[in-house]
Amino acid sequence: MINDIRLSPLYPMVNPQSIAFLGASNNFSAMGSTIFSSLRKAGFPGRLYPVHPKEKVVQGIAAFEKVEDLPETPDLAVFVLPTRLVCETLEACGVKGIRHVIIVTAGFREVGGAGLELEKQLVETAKKWGIRFLGPNCIGVTNPHKLLNTTFMRSEGSAGFIGLASQSGSFVTQMFNYLDRFKVGFSTAFSVGNSADVDIVDCLEYLGACPHTKVIALYVEGLVRGRLFVETAKRISIKKPIVALYVGGSETGRKAGFSHTGTMAGPDRLYDGIFRQAGVVRARSVTELFDFARALGSLPFAAGRRVAIQTHSGGPGAAAADACGRTGLEVPPLLPKTIEKLSAFVPHTGSIANPVDITYSKNPMDFFSQIPSALLEDENADMLLVYYLVPLAMVLRPIMSMGLDEETAAAHATRWLDEQAASLADLMGRHNKPIAGFTFRSITEHFPQALMSRGIPVFQGPEKAVRALWACYEYARLKSRLLA
Amino acid sequence: MINDIRLSPLYPMVNPQSIAFLGASNNFSAMGSTIFSSLRKAGFPGRLYPVHPKEKVVQGIAAFEKVEDLPETPDLAVFVLPTRLVCETLEACGVKGIRHVIIVTAGFREVGGAGLELEKQLVETAKKWGIRFLGPNCIGVTNPHKLLNTTFMRSEGSAGFIGLASQSGSFVTQMFNYLDRFKVGFSTAFSVGNSADVDIVDCLEYLGACPHTKVIALYVEGLVRGRLFVETAKRISIKKPIVALYVGGSETGRKAGFSHTGTMAGPDRLYDGIFRQAGVVRARSVTELFDFARALGSLPFAAGRRVAIQTHSGGPGAAAADACGRTGLEVPPLLPKTIEKLSAFVPHTGSIANPVDITYSKNPMDFFSQIPSALLEDENADMLLVYYLVPLAMVLRPIMSMGLDEETAAAHATRWLDEQAASLADLMGRHNKPIAGFTFRSITEHFPQALMSRGIPVFQGPEKAVRALWACYEYARLKSRLLA
Repeated sequence: MINDIRLSPLYPMVNPQSIAFLGASNNFSAMGSTIFSSLRKAGFPGRLYPVHPKEKVVQGIAAFEKVEDLPETPDLAVFVLPTRLVCETLEACGVKGIRHVIIVTAGFREVGGAGLELEKQLVETAKKWGIRFLGPNCIGVTNPHKLLNTTFMRSEGSAGFIGLASQSGSFVTQMFNYLDRFKVGFSTAFSVGNSADVDIVDCLEYLGACPHTKVIALYVEGLVRGRLFVETAKRISIKKPIVALYVGGSETGRKAGFSHTGTMAGPDRLYDGIFRQAGVVRARSVTELFDFARALGSLPFAAGRRVAIQTHSGGPGAAAADACGRTGLEVPPLLPKTIEKLSAFVPHTGSIANPVDITYSKNPMDFFSQIPSALLEDENADMLLVYYLVPLAMVLRPIMSMGLDEETAAAHATRWLDEQAASLADLMGRHNKPIAGFTFRSITEHFPQALMSRGIPVFQGPEKAVRALWACYEYARLKSRLLA
Repeated sequence: MINDIRLSPLYPMVNPQSIAFLGASNNFSAMGSTIFSSLRKAGFPGRLYPVHPKEKVVQGIAAFEKVEDLPETPDLAVFVLPTRLVCETLEACGVKGIRHVIIVTAGFREVGGAGLELEKQLVETAKKWGIRFLGPNCIGVTNPHKLLNTTFMRSEGSAGFIGLASQSGSFVTQMFNYLDRFKVGFSTAFSVGNSADVDIVDCLEYLGACPHTKVIALYVEGLVRGRLFVETAKRISIKKPIVALYVGGSETGRKAGFSHTGTMAGPDRLYDGIFRQAGVVRARSVTELFDFARALGSLPFAAGRRVAIQTHSGGPGAAAADACGRTGLEVPPLLPKTIEKLSAFVPHTGSIANPVDITYSKNPMDFFSQIPSALLEDENADMLLVYYLVPLAMVLRPIMSMGLDEETAAAHATRWLDEQAASLADLMGRHNKPIAGFTFRSITEHFPQALMSRGIPVFQGPEKAVRALWACYEYARLKSRLLA
């Protein structure tokens, strides 16, 4: 295991100063051109060298006819070439002294037949020159902290703390927009494609050392270096959480994964064991993978499995409590001192059992200060789940009824919501217990966004929130077992 | 079982011509005032009679001091009164001849102690006068087809096809905004609260006969009349699908439900049996309850468990296939004739196995016509799952690169997306097989909205879409078993 990303063989791929780009042209409908364009739009500050057999200028940048013509040896070459040209171009890169390549081109092992032979040739050529490469059949790397994006999709949102290594490029590109809606983002994301050379284990090692990465997410269709994976993940997961989705465990998933990246998958139970041994928290769906990553990357870890639930309504409270029970979390009785503290805030039609049902009838100013504070102080509670997430309109209405115009009222309302979010985030910091929220409204509304941008994740519905809190508990449990 | 809602004792509650409202005032922060205001904002076309001991005019409408002063006997009275006034006011309603009441007021059985006694009194008074009432501790009814909304939350979106009976008011009010984002809505929704008189079984019977209701959703914390539930649900579910979420099955859910509505819940397995016997499809979460309702209310039912998957990217395809396997659905091989048809559309780097991986490289015009058409024609496929849901920007970019200004380009792009959505909906109609889509982008983007408004439900991530398709299969299976 490394402690410094500069020691990783992947470092120049993720932090290049200069890139040769093979496969971009002035035909904007070609994949290579789209990727080159998104690389430039990301604002990559290093030197870019398009290589094109005919065009002298590609998208406004001086192009070179052949790799050998490049004025320097770039840190990285990106290939979006026709399949038949890949091997000979890799050879040319070797001659030029290029030692890091991303091969986006598909048509290798995953298509079977001649593709198998072609991939073998690729590996041999790379070995001969000491080239490390990502792919083929991948979409490369994004490192928003260095404004690097070799995918065809434009980045959205800010650089973040989720490190991803994925056997699917979609779970890089499709997540730019997805994660941005939750106010999180990638630290670095790898699409490993067929993993003919660099594989998930290499990426895991890099992300383990990456200072921007607070949590590592893995999308796995099948692991080849299983033992090394366990050893590497074990060493990392005592320092930072790793979450994984494995889709090769069902017969249908196994087949689909094989035709996607040519990976041989193993039985579900085997992977359950691998992940548990390695301290990896296993997710059950794509969205859950990122739910877990959001929670584990921004929340304190849970010291135990006991959840205090704060709701303004019985149904969502009961559904949340039921979800806790089904997920292996507890909803303990509150301590007498907590009940005493809360009795000033909860009307007689509410409930001071756990879930604490505030109902609508008291002062909303307490919802994100006195009430959660009392719950977080309770030694019986390891985590807090909050349902009451105020829609902007609900705050706006009473303010406007005082005669303010809409714009002034909106300014007051959003400031009030921001203050409430800050208050809750502050409580989380002081008590060092995880807090998660849930809502049925859009998570892009002002209050959920304000909470999420302050590190309190919000989920659509109680079950997802509960599963994310479970991940905080499960990671702490796995970690302490590894340390013991 | 009834075949006409006019025969239901609930008919005047759901379709009143006139309403007495007790508990609204000119103090806008009171719950009663909020509900009265949302009743009016919904555009209720009948006669409204606020009753208030002091105020002569409530929110601009002439008020009456006492129930006995009302100029007619209204079809319905709504109570949002202090707990201590409820019984005597019900008595006054009895005297006046009012036979249908919604009691929003809480503080009865669910708070224990004196509340138990109070609820008994309530039931006795109602019996004495032959009054049918909903609640207490509920938020009443919404019937958007009749512009009726007795909840404190303003309606959003259009009247729809989901009939809901819920032991939580939140799953009525919180779903206005939620369902609208998915382009569906309630036909009629009941919050039954403590069910001291009208319970879920009564509502189920009403919804079974309701012509606007294509699917019935139930939120259950515990059933009292279990045997009648099974008999009623059985008769209805051979005509229209019923989906249910039960949260009393875990120890934590049971306790929370009890403090919410005072309901005694039973073991999870018992309810599994009840639902299966009754032909009810059981959901595992709140969002899944409505996912199932959306799917079952708008899709044809599935003749079998075999899913064809159309994707433009391997990872989401593999994750979808894996989800099918885990959910008990199959991803069968395609017929040779289908493979032949598709070979013209799928590039060599794609895959014509199932999932069909189109990749990005061919004509997007085929994605929603030729390709799904071939898959729906395949006798091996009972359902179709589609991943490729085009972001507007992706269509906009090439159009704008042809030199059109943004506004014209946007008009072209949205028209093109609408045409694609219409084409897919048309294919669904012709082949009578369910189609579901999934995306990781926001479901409020143009294309998912266009699909959903044409009856093709779209889900966030493959697992939710697969579960919804499973519900289409499961309902068909349960129904044919009941008919056998």
